[in-house]
Amino acid sequence: MAKAPGEIEALIALMSRLPGLGPRSARRAVLAMLKKRGLVMEPLAQALTRVAQSARDCQVCGNISDHDICPICADEARATGIVCVVEDVSDLWAMERAGGFKGRYHVLGGTLSALESVGPETLRIPALEERIGAEGISEVILALNATVEGQTTAHYIAETLAPTGVSVSALARGLPMGGELDYLDDGTIAAALAARRQL
Amino acid sequence: MAKAPGEIEALIALMSRLPGLGPRSARRAVLAMLKKRGLVMEPLAQALTRVAQSARDCQVCGNISDHDICPICADEARATGIVCVVEDVSDLWAMERAGGFKGRYHVLGGTLSALESVGPETLRIPALEERIGAEGISEVILALNATVEGQTTAHYIAETLAPTGVSVSALARGLPMGGELDYLDDGTIAAALAARRQL
Repeated sequence: MAKAPGEIEALIALMSRLPGLGPRSARRAVLAMLKKRGLVMEPLAQALTRVAQSARDCQVCGNISDHDICPICADEARATGIVCVVEDVSDLWAMERAGGFKGRYHVLGGTLSALESVGPETLRIPALEERIGAEGISEVILALNATVEGQTTAHYIAETLAPTGVSVSALARGLPMGGELDYLDDGTIAAALAARRQL
Repeated sequence: MAKAPGEIEALIALMSRLPGLGPRSARRAVLAMLKKRGLVMEPLAQALTRVAQSARDCQVCGNISDHDICPICADEARATGIVCVVEDVSDLWAMERAGGFKGRYHVLGGTLSALESVGPETLRIPALEERIGAEGISEVILALNATVEGQTTAHYIAETLAPTGVSVSALARGLPMGGELDYLDDGTIAAALAARRQL
């Protein structure tokens, strides 16, 4: 279906595999780059090459950075006794953008799923148990998505950690900032009602 | 607002400048690449580097390829006397995907625009006039977009080429394939009516 030169077509095919880009938008993006080769394409190629070479998974928490131990795990100013468990690196970044958490992280790399045969081992849950002993962790915050999969995983982790005696908590449920009752789903409203706080 | 390592943030910033990608979707795309470094990120970095180094504008028609003279201009099997004028490289690729045209192309690189001070020189219209003499071109097909800018440009080119005596035509207007009258705009229907053909 295409008539661009082979190498450009190969680039479009690779780009179209990225989330949020289809064949059409990948073609548009590549063409925009081709028109600004010096300004956009070359810097992007260099940045990609650099990151592809330097990026690695943190050996402690599973975050992605350019060190074997990520800047968060290496930051001695952050509390060591408290760990925030997230599904994915993107969730870790979201937590950091939100600010307010000054402990360590643990990235699961997904959620438990019988259908996709994702078990506790795949999810680095044993690694979490190990850290709790090795790092003297006393508090675990489960910052998992408010989805069925996320909550199933949270339950499993809470049960698994029960014998260790660490305090396990989860993010609060309630109205999002700016949320209007009329537009919110019933589940959210019911959760906010159940967790109502005294004023 | 971000907490990814500096190089990764720089990559996200560059990606977010591409059309169709914003800061959020660029972040998602970069994260997806980071998770498949060997499978997606490295091949993409290599493809980008290769294309950035090899891509150049065809000196004859303005198409982008990896040669100084693009494969279409270099193809001796294609008719030389007939040239199809398009606004942009993406339009040239679209024409080639549609098939059916076996002549040469001329990429204007935009449309005339008093507001953005795009004049005939910027648009390679003088280069088109030159080619008509030099290549013995007898027929020019204006395959410009059916927008006000495209049609203004088509009019200007038709007038400019009138003294040369070449035949100048434009793409037909009418119902698009699968078009339903009830959903088409009045302009399209009026154009289709005016250009009705005997059965």
